[in-house]
Parts: sequence; C-alpha cells; structure tokens
Amino acid sequence: IAVSLCALFWSQVLVNIGNHFDLKASVFQAPRRGIYSFSFHVVKVYNRQTIQVNLMQNDYPVISAFAGDQDVTREAASNGVLLMVEREDRVYLKLERGTLMGGWKYSTFSGFLVFPL
Amino acid sequence: IAVSLCALFWSQVLVNIGNHFDLKASVFQAPRRGIYSFSFHVVKVYNRQTIQVNLMQNDYPVISAFAGDQDVTREAASNGVLLMVEREDRVYLKLERGTLMGGWKYSTFSGFLVFPL
Amino acid sequence: IAVSLCALFWSQVLVNIGNHFDLKASVFQAPRRGIYSFSFHVVKVYNRQTIQVNLMQNDYPVISAFAGDQDVTREAASNGVLLMVEREDRVYLKLERGTLMGGWKYSTFSGFLVFPL
Repeated sequence: IAVSLCALFWSQVLVNIGNHFDLKASVFQAPRRGIYSFSFHVVKVYNRQTIQVNLMQNDYPVISAFAGDQDVTREAASNGVLLMVEREDRVYLKLERGTLMGGWKYSTFSGFLVFPL
Repeated sequence: IAVSLCALFWSQVLVNIGNHFDLKASVFQAPRRGIYSFSFHVVKVYNRQTIQVNLMQNDYPVISAFAGDQDVTREAASNGVLLMVEREDRVYLKLERGTLMGGWKYSTFSGFLVFPL
Repeated sequence: IAVSLCALFWSQVLVNIGNHFDLKASVFQAPRRGIYSFSFHVVKVYNRQTIQVNLMQNDYPVISAFAGDQDVTREAASNGVLLMVEREDRVYLKLERGTLMGGWKYSTFSGFLVFPL
C-alpha cells in the first residue's frame, strides 16, 4: 500500500512523505483514491476581525472553522474531517474571511491516507 | 483487514464506509473490536449560553468539550481521543449542557479504525 | 506491522497499546521509527492567565497552542500534527506559559503510528 501524507507548519513542512504537498501553492494533491483524514488549526493573532477558514476540495468548500474573539491575543480556528478523495484531487485551506496578521505562524494543516479505495 | 469509518457534517455525511453510522440516531456502531480515533468540532452560534458536549461510549461519557464565550459569533467545542471499542459499542455525541441555535451547522464528528484487536 | 499508540485523559489513560506511554512522566516514547499523528486539547479552567502549551519532541518545541480568553469558564488550547519520529524519541506536552488551575482535567493527548518507516 502506497501511503502518502503531509503536515505543515506553514513556511515549514514537518512531514511530506511522497512529496504530494506542493509547498508553493500550499496544496495537497492526492496520489491515489481513498479516505483521507485532514485537520487544521489556524491561529489568529490579536486583531478585531473575525476569520473564517475553509477546507477546500478542488474548488468546493467542505468544512469551515471560525475565530472571532476580539479580546484574545491568540485564538485558533480548528476543524477536521474524513474525506473521500479522488486521485489528483486538490485539498487546501482558504482564508474565506478576515486577514491573518503576521501570517500563518503556529498554524498547522495535516493530512494522511486512512485507507485506499 | 476490514476497515470502517465515518465522518459527518451533521445532516450531511461525507464519508460512511461500511455504513456503520446510523444517520437517524447519529450513532456510530462499531463493526469490530479495535482502537478507534474519534474527534469532533461542535460549533456554537452566538448566544449567551455555555455548551458542554460529551463524547459517549455506550452510555458513559468519555471526554467533554466546552464553548462558553459570550461575545463571539461562532466558537467551537472540540476534542479528540483514541478509544478501545468493543464490537457493537455505540459512540455518539451528546449535548450535555446548553442549546445549539440553528442546529449542528459547521459541526463535524469523525471516527476511524486505527487498528483492529 | 507493529502498531503502537496511546491516548490519555491525564490521570486516566484510555488506551496505551504497547505500553509506550510512561504514566509517571507523561511522556510517549516511540517504539519504532515512523510517522505519528499527535493531537492535544488542553482545557484551561477560568482564570485570568493566558496559557501556551508546547508539543515537545525530545527537548524541541514543535507546535504550540494558546488559550487566553479571560471571560470564559473553560477554553481549550488545541493543536495537532504529523511528526517523523525516530526510535526512542520522546514526545510530550509542556505548559510553556501560565498555570492550569485544577490540573489537566478534561485535557487529552493522543498519538498513533500512521505508518512505520
């Protein structure tokens, strides 16, 4: 079984087995059909905006997460999901609303093949 | 190895391999003994209540998560756990405290067999 | 494939296959080289401090999570990551900043081998 996965610390990839994570585009492209587990924690540094982060499969938003507290220095928008992914599907995060001051620091995005189909 | 799993977006099931997730009751029933990974993110839309969400195994609460901010439009009560599950055990979420205005929108509940025993 | 994993509820270990989790030190020691998935949810009970929790690999902080809301009774600092772990590496949580009044109640720390290398 060819297992492939990746995790990132933005700007710093911790694990990228199989090289299916495209660093420049921050897009995971599935090497094969299967069930994948994806999770993310996007950290918002203090500002007065609400952020919404979408996990996108190709160009379709699958799940969303929110962080909107205005009095907190750091808050995470987190979610996770199991997805049926076709070969060559692209999975990535999209900041749907708000801005991330200071970038994606402390944020993580992880995915791995649970089993192939 | 018979692997089985499910994930849901409430009202919308994303993955349900093996059909071990009962949509009507929102209960996952284990097809075999093993170690399972479960995680959930329950999103509370703005209201002044604190919510407590329990992950239940049969009728026993295993872990809890909380969301209690009163000034935030959307906030998630999240947690995750590895569980030893017997065949036919039922695993589900229970809203122990508070109400979810607008229902389980944006909430996820994911589980998969890490390995059989 | 020798799969090994553990999850804990602090003071209460739910799953500890292979006994690679040292209860006294709360340290997971990897039985073999591979890619592991780790996630944690550390619950802060109401107090006016901000907490920062680091996931440590040996003595190096890999990822951080924060909880800093001052008006909330219970709030979680959560994150998760995939890590390449060498045999005998130690992985554990460290409270980098703040205190946990009432201890690690409701907190979880989960890890499992995604695949060996």
